Amino acid sequence: MNNRLESLSEILLMGPGPSCVPPSVYEALAKPTIGHLDPTFIAIMDDIKGRLQNVMKTENRMTLPVSGTGSAGMETCFVNLVEPGDAVLVLINGVFGMRMADVATRLGADVDTLAFDWGSPVVPEQLQATLDGKKYDMVAVVHAETSTGVCNPVEEIAAQVKPTGALFLLDAVTSLGGIPVDADAWGVDAMYSGTQKCLSCPPGLSPVTFSDRAVDKMMNRKTKVPNWYLDLSMIVAYWEGSQRAYHHTAPINMLYGLYQALGLVLDEGLEAVFDRHRQSHEALVQALGSLGMEMLVAPKFRLPMLNAVKIPHGVDEASVRQKLLQDHGIEIGAGLGPLAGKIWRIGLMGHTARKENVDRLIDALASVCGK
Amino acid sequence: MNNRLESLSEILLMGPGPSCVPPSVYEALAKPTIGHLDPTFIAIMDDIKGRLQNVMKTENRMTLPVSGTGSAGMETCFVNLVEPGDAVLVLINGVFGMRMADVATRLGADVDTLAFDWGSPVVPEQLQATLDGKKYDMVAVVHAETSTGVCNPVEEIAAQVKPTGALFLLDAVTSLGGIPVDADAWGVDAMYSGTQKCLSCPPGLSPVTFSDRAVDKMMNRKTKVPNWYLDLSMIVAYWEGSQRAYHHTAPINMLYGLYQALGLVLDEGLEAVFDRHRQSHEALVQALGSLGMEMLVAPKFRLPMLNAVKIPHGVDEASVRQKLLQDHGIEIGAGLGPLAGKIWRIGLMGHTARKENVDRLIDALASVCGK
Repeated sequence: MNNRLESLSEILLMGPGPSCVPPSVYEALAKPTIGHLDPTFIAIMDDIKGRLQNVMKTENRMTLPVSGTGSAGMETCFVNLVEPGDAVLVLINGVFGMRMADVATRLGADVDTLAFDWGSPVVPEQLQATLDGKKYDMVAVVHAETSTGVCNPVEEIAAQVKPTGALFLLDAVTSLGGIPVDADAWGVDAMYSGTQKCLSCPPGLSPVTFSDRAVDKMMNRKTKVPNWYLDLSMIVAYWEGSQRAYHHTAPINMLYGLYQALGLVLDEGLEAVFDRHRQSHEALVQALGSLGMEMLVAPKFRLPMLNAVKIPHGVDEASVRQKLLQDHGIEIGAGLGPLAGKIWRIGLMGHTARKENVDRLIDALASVCGK
Repeated sequence: MNNRLESLSEILLMGPGPSCVPPSVYEALAKPTIGHLDPTFIAIMDDIKGRLQNVMKTENRMTLPVSGTGSAGMETCFVNLVEPGDAVLVLINGVFGMRMADVATRLGADVDTLAFDWGSPVVPEQLQATLDGKKYDMVAVVHAETSTGVCNPVEEIAAQVKPTGALFLLDAVTSLGGIPVDADAWGVDAMYSGTQKCLSCPPGLSPVTFSDRAVDKMMNRKTKVPNWYLDLSMIVAYWEGSQRAYHHTAPINMLYGLYQALGLVLDEGLEAVFDRHRQSHEALVQALGSLGMEMLVAPKFRLPMLNAVKIPHGVDEASVRQKLLQDHGIEIGAGLGPLAGKIWRIGLMGHTARKENVDRLIDALASVCGK
């Protein structure tokens, strides 16, 4: 049987995720599989929980990786916290805000959305007017909008939501490990992330965390969670306590990868990691400017790890991406939704966020665009 | 930061899954991560689909691995095929039948269950009486009950269900790759499996397949699938056609592992693989007999890959398992539910199913039990 894996070569992953994976994370993935109830594995799970708490800046007991990709984390937060008829407000300024609204609507929530321009952040004054007009059970927002490169003012939004009594749900898929995420200090009640962005582990897991208030809400549901696989009341019995009750077989080798990836982030130090992202981003923006390319987002609201670049006039954007991939071994991302054909999305996530990678991309881009 | 992965050693996995992983599957997991929309990755996805069709003996177009473990495959089948009020009959003779009923109930189905003794198979005559008494939209059964070691008479059950017009849903988590699974010939409408049993890939993916009739049912739903992450109407747009639409980021490296694992099964040949399972099983049963140990299930209904062994009188079953693991590096499984403390579950799945592994276990068991 032919084997396509033999010809796989390392690609410089500068799209919206996955990001480049450090060698020791690959090695971790290939460590011997052991049983999901093996005491050695339980010890690794406990360490993963501790490492996640450190990276998320939380003391939440209910902190664990869900056995699915980032969108499974989104689904987990909504399906456990929302019951039919609950009033949910979703703030939308990109694809992932829209996805949140879709997920909540499918679960029978009473979903309101507050929309902002794609490429601009959520405006707290508009949010305040909405919060003044209706009582919500939950308010949800994306921290780092991967579809636009905008950083939403999460700390400010959290402070507005707190006095209303609503649970505050944060999508930290792209932000975690790239910019400060301070779950407890901000008053986040539920948060999900992904592994394949700034944590630089291949996709397959979604770290989540829940405040005591969120756990209370789950434990006092009037209805069973309409999703057996993601029912946290059962999953925590595997992740916590002295008796580890089998729920579903954990994705063991993926968890080795996450364990290692979190270790690398904490060994480097969160502040150093954030600095590296910021410096790579600044180098990229400057170099793109020298190629005559402009950013979509105003400087104040830009994410360092996801750079939305306006496609220059007359450039066939798909052809540029194709040439970067085929001739230079570099992947960058296309625009999504209304921004398709209008922007490229250049990722500087995790292990990818290094000056030498910026230089390699800029050289390749200059060559492909004939500059 | 300490690193528990460095001290991980290979365990002979003879429990109910995960099973031992072949070296080339570990190597596959550690291949370079590439983008989920990279043409090279799309080609790998297409091959995975083809390999799954071969292993599942189906020409179903909708054949793909779900981004979660086996239980996510179960969830996928029910959440896409069942709408509130649908009449679902679940045949139960173990933990995994019970789980099916729980999943369907949470989705608002009108669930009837037909229970059989744990350790015995489904009895077609009793099923017939139930089918004669009520019209069902779906009938669901587990092929290989991992909790008891019983093989249910799936071909016969399928033939009974067919004339009723109900969709026939099969759990092939533990059977696929270990005993014949003939989806199309049997008239299976929906089927899910896992990777960490007889396919010998670490846990993390759930192969599923759907007949045209099942796809019709999905496409004519009156309500949206109440689970965004597992909504197949969107997932297939990523797995099929010329335009691959991003839904969620696929678990890329896990898919490399599955690609390789399926390749190994097909290279060896399905019949040879089944023979290997059967021969290992026969050797195990004979050797256990010589130690004075008895099987739970009657010979005719035994699974080769999951052997339920009665715990001899006066033996501390947990202590035996612990010594096997700590002193001999061998994992076997405990009983579940009403069989906890009454049986061990000895897995001979995939790469594990070899005479030399049986010998190693028997020697260790004799030593631990003082025979």
